[in-house]
Amino acid sequence: MNSTFKSPHAHVQKLTGETRFVEDISLPGQLAGGILRSPHAHARIVNIDTTKALEIEGVHAVLTAADVPRLAYGPTKYKDWNIFAESEVLFIGDEVAAVAADSKELVQAALQMIDVHYEGLPAVFDAEEALSPESPLLYPQTEQNRPMHLQLERGDVETAKKDAEIVRGGRYVINPIYQGHLEPIAALASWSEEEGITLWAGSHIPYRARETYAAAFGLPEDRVRIIVPPIGGSFGAKYVLKMHIIAAALSMEAKRPVKMVFDRKEDMISAHPRVPLKMDVEIGATADGKFVYKDVVVYANAGARIYWSPNIVATACTRPDGIYHFNNVRAEGNLCYTNNSPTTCMRGFGNAEMLFAVESIIDEIADSLKIDPAELRRMNIVHQNERTAHGYQLDSCKLEECIDTVKKMANWQRRDSLPKNRGLGLALGNHVSGFRGIDPRFDGSTAVLRLKATGDIEVETGEIDLGQGLSQTYAKIAARELGISDQAIIVKSGDTARHPFGIGTLASRSTVMGGNAVQLAAAEFKRKLSAFMKELYGTEGKWDERFIVVGETAHSFKEIATLFRMKNAGEELLVRSTYVPNTELPDHTYYGNPSPNYPFAAHVAEVEVDPDTGRVKLLGYWAAHDSGTILNEVGAISQVNGAVAQGIGWVTMEELKLEEGRVMNPSIMDYRMPGAADIPDIQVSFIEGEDPHGPFGAKSVGEVALDPVPGAIANAIAHAIGKRGYSLPFTPEKVWTLLHTEESK
Amino acid sequence: MNSTFKSPHAHVQKLTGETRFVEDISLPGQLAGGILRSPHAHARIVNIDTTKALEIEGVHAVLTAADVPRLAYGPTKYKDWNIFAESEVLFIGDEVAAVAADSKELVQAALQMIDVHYEGLPAVFDAEEALSPESPLLYPQTEQNRPMHLQLERGDVETAKKDAEIVRGGRYVINPIYQGHLEPIAALASWSEEEGITLWAGSHIPYRARETYAAAFGLPEDRVRIIVPPIGGSFGAKYVLKMHIIAAALSMEAKRPVKMVFDRKEDMISAHPRVPLKMDVEIGATADGKFVYKDVVVYANAGARIYWSPNIVATACTRPDGIYHFNNVRAEGNLCYTNNSPTTCMRGFGNAEMLFAVESIIDEIADSLKIDPAELRRMNIVHQNERTAHGYQLDSCKLEECIDTVKKMANWQRRDSLPKNRGLGLALGNHVSGFRGIDPRFDGSTAVLRLKATGDIEVETGEIDLGQGLSQTYAKIAARELGISDQAIIVKSGDTARHPFGIGTLASRSTVMGGNAVQLAAAEFKRKLSAFMKELYGTEGKWDERFIVVGETAHSFKEIATLFRMKNAGEELLVRSTYVPNTELPDHTYYGNPSPNYPFAAHVAEVEVDPDTGRVKLLGYWAAHDSGTILNEVGAISQVNGAVAQGIGWVTMEELKLEEGRVMNPSIMDYRMPGAADIPDIQVSFIEGEDPHGPFGAKSVGEVALDPVPGAIANAIAHAIGKRGYSLPFTPEKVWTLLHTEESK
Repeated sequence: MNSTFKSPHAHVQKLTGETRFVEDISLPGQLAGGILRSPHAHARIVNIDTTKALEIEGVHAVLTAADVPRLAYGPTKYKDWNIFAESEVLFIGDEVAAVAADSKELVQAALQMIDVHYEGLPAVFDAEEALSPESPLLYPQTEQNRPMHLQLERGDVETAKKDAEIVRGGRYVINPIYQGHLEPIAALASWSEEEGITLWAGSHIPYRARETYAAAFGLPEDRVRIIVPPIGGSFGAKYVLKMHIIAAALSMEAKRPVKMVFDRKEDMISAHPRVPLKMDVEIGATADGKFVYKDVVVYANAGARIYWSPNIVATACTRPDGIYHFNNVRAEGNLCYTNNSPTTCMRGFGNAEMLFAVESIIDEIADSLKIDPAELRRMNIVHQNERTAHGYQLDSCKLEECIDTVKKMANWQRRDSLPKNRGLGLALGNHVSGFRGIDPRFDGSTAVLRLKATGDIEVETGEIDLGQGLSQTYAKIAARELGISDQAIIVKSGDTARHPFGIGTLASRSTVMGGNAVQLAAAEFKRKLSAFMKELYGTEGKWDERFIVVGETAHSFKEIATLFRMKNAGEELLVRSTYVPNTELPDHTYYGNPSPNYPFAAHVAEVEVDPDTGRVKLLGYWAAHDSGTILNEVGAISQVNGAVAQGIGWVTMEELKLEEGRVMNPSIMDYRMPGAADIPDIQVSFIEGEDPHGPFGAKSVGEVALDPVPGAIANAIAHAIGKRGYSLPFTPEKVWTLLHTEESK
Repeated sequence: MNSTFKSPHAHVQKLTGETRFVEDISLPGQLAGGILRSPHAHARIVNIDTTKALEIEGVHAVLTAADVPRLAYGPTKYKDWNIFAESEVLFIGDEVAAVAADSKELVQAALQMIDVHYEGLPAVFDAEEALSPESPLLYPQTEQNRPMHLQLERGDVETAKKDAEIVRGGRYVINPIYQGHLEPIAALASWSEEEGITLWAGSHIPYRARETYAAAFGLPEDRVRIIVPPIGGSFGAKYVLKMHIIAAALSMEAKRPVKMVFDRKEDMISAHPRVPLKMDVEIGATADGKFVYKDVVVYANAGARIYWSPNIVATACTRPDGIYHFNNVRAEGNLCYTNNSPTTCMRGFGNAEMLFAVESIIDEIADSLKIDPAELRRMNIVHQNERTAHGYQLDSCKLEECIDTVKKMANWQRRDSLPKNRGLGLALGNHVSGFRGIDPRFDGSTAVLRLKATGDIEVETGEIDLGQGLSQTYAKIAARELGISDQAIIVKSGDTARHPFGIGTLASRSTVMGGNAVQLAAAEFKRKLSAFMKELYGTEGKWDERFIVVGETAHSFKEIATLFRMKNAGEELLVRSTYVPNTELPDHTYYGNPSPNYPFAAHVAEVEVDPDTGRVKLLGYWAAHDSGTILNEVGAISQVNGAVAQGIGWVTMEELKLEEGRVMNPSIMDYRMPGAADIPDIQVSFIEGEDPHGPFGAKSVGEVALDPVPGAIANAIAHAIGKRGYSLPFTPEKVWTLLHTEESK
């Protein structure tokens, strides 16, 4: 009779190997599930015959569009999702049918026995090309394959162009990359009449997922429960996923639990890569280095369905304007449907992409004007107490200190005397700590704190630990507010039926949004517990770890919990607090104050380029960050280390090779990601200071740590070889070609 | 793809047939379970061989004591439970082994293949006999087979005996009866590593059940979740049950859900009947009818294990002292282990039993003194603002009005001129509205109210609707506090993982305890919602059903719910309130104020006795009740109707025939329960008035409605035939014998 216990602390579980991911979870009577995917980028479905598949013994469900609700739904306002393709498939990998059976082998056998008759249709794969009237329309109701066309201007860019004494820019191209989560996408769905749909699945926005999945089936939200086990990495890949819905549909049909786990190939084919962007970017400046305008046009390849690409386009078009005074800015964003697999978020979320262009151009201007690139930046950056072009209220900003610090760290003055083929590149980054507008309805977070009968303090949150260490950070916040160590505190999250509502982990929001809620709740908890002590003993007592000392007597939390229940009808001491940030939803012109605060960073990369092979080797990396107060130092440093490593992969090696919509390298063998040998020593420094809006003054760190990486590496390469690449990644082949081409652009 | 919805209202579901009891619930991969029970009342287990059972294909688990934790546990302080009998069986029906298999038939086949070698041991079945040194001891550590020996005295009974001018009394015997719930006992258990034990089971004290079951397995409480589907009757039978634990153990072993549903025979053999009592009761009075003492000795047959019999003994020994001024009272309670199936609660809970004796004796005294029995009672009853002998604080008491009213209703003055063989009998009853001491740790209740996105108001409670209509009453309480109708209000309860803690439905506590919590929460909810309206519109607005009207505009709850979420980080408007009653835990002398308030009743029964057959026919029944404010009139009248019908069954026909511990009539064919033809027209009148401690002044009604029934019927029979029976039930045979015996006692 098994009654194993886990450590209550998520990070300890990871160390001891106790962590159980979705794949490790099994339910009685569980079946395996699998999806039949379109082999065509665009085709009409003439007929589907599932007869033979259904005849296989051990096959419990075979589903196509004919068997499921056909409602228009989707996680954003673009309701272009289905459960299965009905009349047309729109990309290679599009979901056509699904099978639940006794084993994975039977699932595969049954999938092969489903007979689909397709009739090929013309397809389009390039975002710009998709806008042409000659291209096939993916959705008849969407003109020009363009579901979103952003146009904004502040100031007067045309007039500013006349004032510019130097103009630099060009077309920058962002590679489609795989988020590279270690844990493949997986779901375990269990449907019952009593409980509705229960889904164990790694979504870091499970409440939005619940809303979306309920809509897919036309169910009320409380008939869907999402339980989020520990997530083995996401980086944006695991928001809201159709495979979760298909697992649920199979379970509803088979009336048995269904587990579906992608292998790496399916994960790479059907998971949704970083949105590839083409960006025409131009920046103008005066001869003494004052920026006068920035003008951008973005073409974003959404693939065949909308995940979060609209938000990424908007971010690319606006976010860098929160670092520099460009004075006049204009942006056009074109989101384009194509017959590629839908694309979606990844850490950095449009900003890191655009900063690759902006930071490259700034270095070009600096070179041309013979101004130190760091100095040119210093001349144009934002400062504390400013409100930026699009309305960001900077109540804290230590960007200047970041630049000064990273220069010192990297020994910047040696830049002019580096050996041959070596370069130092600097770039800046900013980000948000939550983004008002991801859910236009509301913003903020709620936390519950309770004193358990065991004497543990339990924190419940609706935000999700996707591996970034949210549980540990929240425990530290609660502990700091309570004045004790975090060992007595257990953080629980990831169950939509049990925990408070949360928007989820995205836009670097968890520390500030959920953390503020935890801090509020902890303060209220302490007040309530102190009042109870006063009621009992006439004094609040003195807290000492798991005890409150009154006179000579140390009362344990456990004892106090028992006394509290005795005085309160068995009810635990429980508080529930909501943090509602003072943010402003960006208006239709994208003006607003979307985040409680804004972190900044300055990074320097040092590279050496092998002129014979074009190989770029990172020799050093220095990061100076303004993330306000650092609550969890190990966690924060690890975030920067991880982001830099991820950026090195993105910028120097990674790319999903797409040929007519087909991923040609769907394996970790063929899709190279960085290993330990690719990563230099990374030095991190935090310029601490209290932001007035963060918990104990904290700001976010997760994404701002990636934002400067492409620019810093690009600038270092340009510095090393005197030529500049405009298209990521800087593979040896591309760099070699650059070295051996007369004109780099 | 099934996505059926139920009406959100439990009482509507019952009318439409949508209600799903445990038996109606199925989980994927579910097995059937069954229990192997001892055929012996007392025997040593020499050997158990499960080999053959395990060999049967389709059998997934066979368990005996050797396979499960062997911890001492139990729902009360008497920790005499096991999961399976280990070395000895203690009663016919004792659980020896259990099987989970693909079908009920396979379960039965496997149970038959379990080979148990028993060696018979001497047994004892009678409570008094169990106390004898010659009787076998069931538990070596329990002296004299007497786990509880209550002794209390107030005043000086020996001295009072000298003052008594008239003394009446005798030995009264209470029959073991089956609670007669329509829905047999059932459980569906599902164990998984992730969720621990989930148990769908009809327990009306699920939090205590959780605590008990967790202890049985040595698990922390949060590894056990109890979900209580609608309960098809309990009347005390479904508190905490070993079969629930066995279902869980089977599920843990088989790693599949296991459903176990008793058929009627197993339900009657293994469910636990009303505690049979032998009561030696004596009351003394002065010649003018003033009571001077009451002296009782109770022998209670606990059977072989402790369920709730200790509390029943204590109630029998004390509760009637809350109706009359006996002035000096003494009680001895002997709880005795015997080799019968364990006995447990049933509506009335010791009080109805003792009142059978007390009300019989009072009528004998009235007869002897030639005082009208109603008048004799009036002379001796308690009144408002008194504190009774054992400390009950009567802040409301309309017992006198009850007597006067029921006399009018029954046309009492015709008593002296009734036709031959007809009789009118009057009896009083009292009860509690919750009993401080059922859980000595705490008392009270917690309610959560939330405004759902749908615009419904959801009430969550830890108390359980066992069919008495708690959901409807709570909806009415919330609605009344909010000033709207109860249609917008949905009551949810019965899930230990989702709802607030509750002690549960027992001791007639639900209306007052849970109801007060609901009222507090509703008041807070209204305050919070009104404050929100003021924040939005500068005025609280005027509530009009599902709308709040501001000026010319009616804002729907749904609209307001959306606005609230928008202003509060997606958090619903939610309040959580705890009601802690001003009760006092009875001390070791049983002195205390165990209930917030005390309901009273006076009943009159009219019978006709057929002198040829001894058959008792009820001709009429009148009930006048002081239950404070009546919140749910239909529900309250139904409670009285149901209690009277149940009492008629108990008093005139029902009895589990036990021969050496074996139930000889385990079927509804052989165990006669009343049908419609046995029930007269029942007239109910409520003497309304606000009690200061109940929600809107309410007191309980569920059990006080049964308490007077045995006395009223006994007195009516005695009045009809001039002779008195002392042993329930008054079957035709017994009454005929009485009629034809010279001396009735």
